[in-house]
Amino acid sequence: MRAVYFSGQDQCLTDREKPAPRPGEALIRVALAGICNTDVELAKGYMGFSGVPGHEFVGVVEAAPDAPQWLGRRVAADINWGCGACPVCLAADSRHCPNRTTLGIAGWDGAFAQWIVAPLGNLHAVPDAVPDREAVFAEPLAAALEVSQQVHLTAKTRMAVLGDGKLGILIACALRHLCPGLVLIGRHASKLDVAARQGVSTRLASQQKERRERFDVVVEATGREDGLARALDLVRPEGMIVAKTTVAGTAPLNLSRLVVDEISLVGSRCGDIALALHFLSERLVDVTPLIEAEYDLEEFPAAFARACRPGAGKILVRIGA
Amino acid sequence: MRAVYFSGQDQCLTDREKPAPRPGEALIRVALAGICNTDVELAKGYMGFSGVPGHEFVGVVEAAPDAPQWLGRRVAADINWGCGACPVCLAADSRHCPNRTTLGIAGWDGAFAQWIVAPLGNLHAVPDAVPDREAVFAEPLAAALEVSQQVHLTAKTRMAVLGDGKLGILIACALRHLCPGLVLIGRHASKLDVAARQGVSTRLASQQKERRERFDVVVEATGREDGLARALDLVRPEGMIVAKTTVAGTAPLNLSRLVVDEISLVGSRCGDIALALHFLSERLVDVTPLIEAEYDLEEFPAAFARACRPGAGKILVRIGA
Repeated sequence: MRAVYFSGQDQCLTDREKPAPRPGEALIRVALAGICNTDVELAKGYMGFSGVPGHEFVGVVEAAPDAPQWLGRRVAADINWGCGACPVCLAADSRHCPNRTTLGIAGWDGAFAQWIVAPLGNLHAVPDAVPDREAVFAEPLAAALEVSQQVHLTAKTRMAVLGDGKLGILIACALRHLCPGLVLIGRHASKLDVAARQGVSTRLASQQKERRERFDVVVEATGREDGLARALDLVRPEGMIVAKTTVAGTAPLNLSRLVVDEISLVGSRCGDIALALHFLSERLVDVTPLIEAEYDLEEFPAAFARACRPGAGKILVRIGA
Repeated sequence: MRAVYFSGQDQCLTDREKPAPRPGEALIRVALAGICNTDVELAKGYMGFSGVPGHEFVGVVEAAPDAPQWLGRRVAADINWGCGACPVCLAADSRHCPNRTTLGIAGWDGAFAQWIVAPLGNLHAVPDAVPDREAVFAEPLAAALEVSQQVHLTAKTRMAVLGDGKLGILIACALRHLCPGLVLIGRHASKLDVAARQGVSTRLASQQKERRERFDVVVEATGREDGLARALDLVRPEGMIVAKTTVAGTAPLNLSRLVVDEISLVGSRCGDIALALHFLSERLVDVTPLIEAEYDLEEFPAAFARACRPGAGKILVRIGA
């Protein structure tokens, strides 16, 4: 089969053996996949990844040795696959299994390929009302919604989302249903407009600086190393920063500010795919304005180069669609 | 009156005007004061402090224009003094008032002096059962107990305290009453012994490295910039680090580890003086083994030099005792 392969800092389109599902797994023909900023970081050496990248996808189950009920169904998937045997997995928290593999990120070949395999327990049927171009956002939308699974957001929470990239916009558009007064803060009027058109209050970072407003919760989704420092400027004493940015290496942290003002900093990663599919099927978030371009798998180098440009929208890769 | 004065990187013993209490304040004759690592950091430029340092003290009220009931009473004090008018103060959280002053740290002359003034609302009567040499620990013990006011610690919490300095030992000795199984991890067998003699489980850092144990809660009290990285190595996924270390400048943070493992990092500062006095009067913690030496105020330069040595115990300064 055709597939993208990352190795060290190299990447190529190549022929790979079509995977074969074992008992408890499904073979999925990938229809559409999205390029995530994490893929860009992987290409820079994040996670020391070698393999087929791609963890945002929608596809159709083509084989499932012991679960024929899945055949022909359109699916998205949880991307973390626990060992099932360790204490973390037995506590029903396999997302954090120390032996886990992660689709397209760690030890499990991903979706920039014609086929993937996935454990049956990770599959989520995509409702008919959700077309492929929206279903491919299930994974990043789940990551956006994860903030609400970690922090109790209410209508009274004074909340800011920092960063008007794709993830920041998804977070703002999704979480405004829990916290209608939230503010999305970014540097690009055109990107803020994408969220504003869905009812999100937005503010240019330059305007925010003139205010002395402090927020209860600041979601840091800038994707930049200096985002944490900017979030610290915006959070009130005893407030909380939710960190969404993963970058290779370390970021500088003003520890004294954190300690003196007793601020909480909470890391936030992947979320609940079923919840994301609910948000998509109920049209609570419109993800389509985030799409910048679509490419065929054979055009992956051009697609990836475009995804690497600062401020790029979502680049989709058509595979079996 | 005689007082210590910090200015930039200079410090001297000098004559200062005796302060006069305004309505709502008390004049306190300082009996005994403790040198804190924060004083050492202040001397290095932390907080840009100029003034009389010293925030750990016990003293006797000598004048209180509108509160004669305080006259002659032995007191400790909350060291943060809010403006009383801002929304933070009105929400009964003056510890975090943006306009606050802090005794001996920011905008309020501290206790390395014969007299200080303090707001009546900050005073706490010291029970007769608590001698001066123990009462002077009310402030650092309150800071140790603050962890329990921010995080729900239970008997089942797997908890580690990292750092066998004075604060780490206080934290371990105090919080073991909530979480008897906690482990104090440090690099100095002799310091760990101070806690072990009070019933704390202890472990040398070198021994800890051989284990793969991960903790629900790790209190970072090393006072070192690299303490945060060591705490990240010890905390389980979705666990919590409580940061106690204040250092000038920034510390490097492995943001990806925090995000991927969804770890919470919570800053923790001053605590409840009344709760600390309760712990002292009930003899729940024995602070006296932490005392390394006592000096008279006129010997402050020698006292401070000793407090600056790595691994120093508590250095007390006798003033009016």
